Amino acid sequence: MRVRHKPWARAMIGDHPEWVVPEPKAHAGEWNDVFGNDKPLHVEVGTGKGQFIINMAKKYPEQNFIGIELQSDVLVMALEQALETELTNLCFINGNGQEIAEYFEQGEVDQLYLNFSDPWPKRRHAKRRLTNERFLSEYEKILAKDGYLQFKTDNRGLFEYSLASLSQYGMVLEEVSLDLHESELAEDNVTTEYEDKFSAKGQPIYYLLAVFK
Amino acid sequence: MRVRHKPWARAMIGDHPEWVVPEPKAHAGEWNDVFGNDKPLHVEVGTGKGQFIINMAKKYPEQNFIGIELQSDVLVMALEQALETELTNLCFINGNGQEIAEYFEQGEVDQLYLNFSDPWPKRRHAKRRLTNERFLSEYEKILAKDGYLQFKTDNRGLFEYSLASLSQYGMVLEEVSLDLHESELAEDNVTTEYEDKFSAKGQPIYYLLAVFK
Repeated sequence: MRVRHKPWARAMIGDHPEWVVPEPKAHAGEWNDVFGNDKPLHVEVGTGKGQFIINMAKKYPEQNFIGIELQSDVLVMALEQALETELTNLCFINGNGQEIAEYFEQGEVDQLYLNFSDPWPKRRHAKRRLTNERFLSEYEKILAKDGYLQFKTDNRGLFEYSLASLSQYGMVLEEVSLDLHESELAEDNVTTEYEDKFSAKGQPIYYLLAVFK
Repeated sequence: MRVRHKPWARAMIGDHPEWVVPEPKAHAGEWNDVFGNDKPLHVEVGTGKGQFIINMAKKYPEQNFIGIELQSDVLVMALEQALETELTNLCFINGNGQEIAEYFEQGEVDQLYLNFSDPWPKRRHAKRRLTNERFLSEYEKILAKDGYLQFKTDNRGLFEYSLASLSQYGMVLEEVSLDLHESELAEDNVTTEYEDKFSAKGQPIYYLLAVFK
């Protein structure tokens, strides 16, 4: 996601350790302590401006949510939104999704979300796609048994690739929709900023829910 | 597929045993003998008016093809087309796809094709869809190790269902396209009558290639 550079972003993030957890790797295996309870842990990789994870946290108070975002200039926009809430079941990691297995211990995460990840359309960049086997093997380490990976995208090429990639890795597709907003799953769907914008143009959102078996 | 009733269809089929093999179950395990060679065997379930299987047989003379069609009134149209060719690597079965495991022996079929099968959109009819586990277990019996199931449809609901159904059965998706005619797979694609008509309206054709693992 490209946004204007904000020289003050890092400082603002540093000023809010209650929202953007410093030294997240130090909490691997101990996120229950960070939240002060043992609710199920749901994690979004690439949380962007935060609309999805904040609305999920509001909608499901019985679960804990962590949004991971690499770019400080983007994460600070999610932080600004979060500051307007009194949510106690949400925090952020200013870090790299590639290192997810260092942020969490084996089986610590109950559900993972990938929303509108970078499609990396060139074949030679396939390894950078968040549904490449390189990433799936990391997700597998931290997801609890029968934990779900939920994936949404508007990018046809990335969705086609992801269906095959997950399947070939050995994951099982529990649900698939090729037009999420027109499906019976729409009712429970929590949208991202990008999803709202894209869907308003009448273009379909692709969705899958998969599990490691 | 609904077509006009043809009282003469059964007689015409009976007059051409070289094309529509009588007593197909008697040849289970011995289709090499029927064709007089040991070329790989490719089978289409629900062959309709025959355009696909006839053009496949023309395009791939190094393979044998069998089209299965239940409705005599439809199969006779495929027969009429076949009679205008001199193909020796093609024949038909006037029979039920549900009985496929009685037409072939274990591992006898190298590739299976399902093209634009009836979507049976009502949930209570899901068991009738040709990608329901009830049928997959039959396909598994007759497909050779690493043999492919290729599936095409224009029906979004059936395709969504099929992706999940195959995956949950334990099949692996080797290729997926959500717009076959706009993909790099289009070049090798052999179309059905229905596919030509539907695609001409600019609507996408869904495609998958899967294997039992």
